[in-house]
Amino acid sequence: MFNHIINARKRLKGHANHTPVMTSGTLNKLVGADIYLKCENFQKMGAFKFRGAYNSISKLTNIEKSKGVITYSSGNHGQAVALVGKMLKVETTIIMPRNAPATKLAAAKGYGAIVIEYNPETQSREDIALKIQEEQSLTMIPPFDHTDVIAGQGTATLELFDQAGPLDMLLTPCGGGGLLSGCAIAAKGKNPDCKVIGVEPALADDACKSFKTRMLHTIKNPETIADGTRTTSLGKITFPLILENVDDMVSVSEKQIIQAVQFLFFRMKIVVEPSGALGLAALLNKKVVLRKKIGVILSGGNIDAETMRLILKS
Amino acid sequence: MFNHIINARKRLKGHANHTPVMTSGTLNKLVGADIYLKCENFQKMGAFKFRGAYNSISKLTNIEKSKGVITYSSGNHGQAVALVGKMLKVETTIIMPRNAPATKLAAAKGYGAIVIEYNPETQSREDIALKIQEEQSLTMIPPFDHTDVIAGQGTATLELFDQAGPLDMLLTPCGGGGLLSGCAIAAKGKNPDCKVIGVEPALADDACKSFKTRMLHTIKNPETIADGTRTTSLGKITFPLILENVDDMVSVSEKQIIQAVQFLFFRMKIVVEPSGALGLAALLNKKVVLRKKIGVILSGGNIDAETMRLILKS
Repeated sequence: MFNHIINARKRLKGHANHTPVMTSGTLNKLVGADIYLKCENFQKMGAFKFRGAYNSISKLTNIEKSKGVITYSSGNHGQAVALVGKMLKVETTIIMPRNAPATKLAAAKGYGAIVIEYNPETQSREDIALKIQEEQSLTMIPPFDHTDVIAGQGTATLELFDQAGPLDMLLTPCGGGGLLSGCAIAAKGKNPDCKVIGVEPALADDACKSFKTRMLHTIKNPETIADGTRTTSLGKITFPLILENVDDMVSVSEKQIIQAVQFLFFRMKIVVEPSGALGLAALLNKKVVLRKKIGVILSGGNIDAETMRLILKS
Repeated sequence: MFNHIINARKRLKGHANHTPVMTSGTLNKLVGADIYLKCENFQKMGAFKFRGAYNSISKLTNIEKSKGVITYSSGNHGQAVALVGKMLKVETTIIMPRNAPATKLAAAKGYGAIVIEYNPETQSREDIALKIQEEQSLTMIPPFDHTDVIAGQGTATLELFDQAGPLDMLLTPCGGGGLLSGCAIAAKGKNPDCKVIGVEPALADDACKSFKTRMLHTIKNPETIADGTRTTSLGKITFPLILENVDDMVSVSEKQIIQAVQFLFFRMKIVVEPSGALGLAALLNKKVVLRKKIGVILSGGNIDAETMRLILKS
């Protein structure tokens, strides 16, 4: 699987942004370690999801590409698939809940995607997507439970090691586990001694529970501000990869997430969405036993005005 | 004066941040030119002002340093002087209006500065500063009208040319004209054919008027959101330098400033204060005749929560 990530990196070269790594003397003093922030908020379309989408879709055969791809996501993954489809001239179909923010529906359509709305009260997005996929012979690009998607996300950590030098700890947010499992494999491939920690909101700590009990836990519609981690559970592929490659899972409160976004805004002058600030929230609140050189994946920067205003008022 | 800037750069090396230059395909398409954003919002203490303060204070003799420095500024310059004083172990006295935001008073005190509050209704900050300066034999580090300050600010543009290659146009905000005059001299020194444009809020367009009439205009308490440009007028040193080295001055509306801050927030994922977004506002609103390779100084990122909430609501 580590080789899979190395190949993904070659595929992404010149297409994904080689995002910068930021450091801060103030932050290092505050935490008591050398912190390297991998700024995936500066990735194309504003989040790491571009990596997995590009890796998956660019790998398809010409016949598959000519038939098109489909996914279900109202969030960053949906936008990423739509953008990659536009770049590679592959038709994309995105299944979105009809109550998704108008800006997200418009953004996907702006990239040329066919958007199919469903009623989340009565319909399952996976069922609708599967039905359309079969009818139209489309290729499914799921949000996280897919080896090509996982390998793509892992490239963020490969880059980070090349930029920061050998890290001995890595923190990354965890929703469905695509980013976490890919990054854990990349980190262990680069330095088997690197401790990899997944971070979840306490309000959506299904992966923490799954990790600790080694049994898959699920959660329904968690009310966390970190909307990128509102997934029901880890996946069939990501869960075992996480059990094998991740050293620990920790959770942070809503207040801690908000304070981390504020720190990034006021001190670092960068815009990071709540899900993207989970790793930093864990560090700022002493949730882990520190090591010397710590990498943190800031996974994305797509935050709407209303949420940011709420955070700035807190 | 160009050599003065080159020397300032040597002095700043290893002390000021070598701030990154950001580009965006979306922005280039939108404007119709190649845009290079010099991110002084990532400078130490969040603004270019660190450059001028460091250059001025580090140049002092040991005797001058041992006596201390003084300035009057409730904004970024005051913070910059306080921080540099802390770094170089020089005692700093900052004259601030008693109605300055508590966070700014606290920040300066946090850097170890002696803060003297005055009543802006009845007292002049320059008079108070001059009186204390004489009584205590302090060295005055004024916010902009000082060749060492100007030379320090110019280093931002020297760096930008090295990072982006030869630019044929440069846009920079204008308050008292320290940044604009320093950057204009640096740009002309690097490429005499580079057009240099200063940008002001229309609500505080004293420098535009001064430039166009070649007579110094003043303005009192302009109500612009771009608080870094609320200076009364250009200075005795900056005004002639601007007449000699700047090609044009343009102004932008409050709405255009707000939209530029929003663009930087939502599209570029960076936090830029209203004054810092003036150059981009001019470009986004076709205020200048475009050239091919355009540099823009994003001068700072120090924005308070209330102002950002207002901008996100607009």
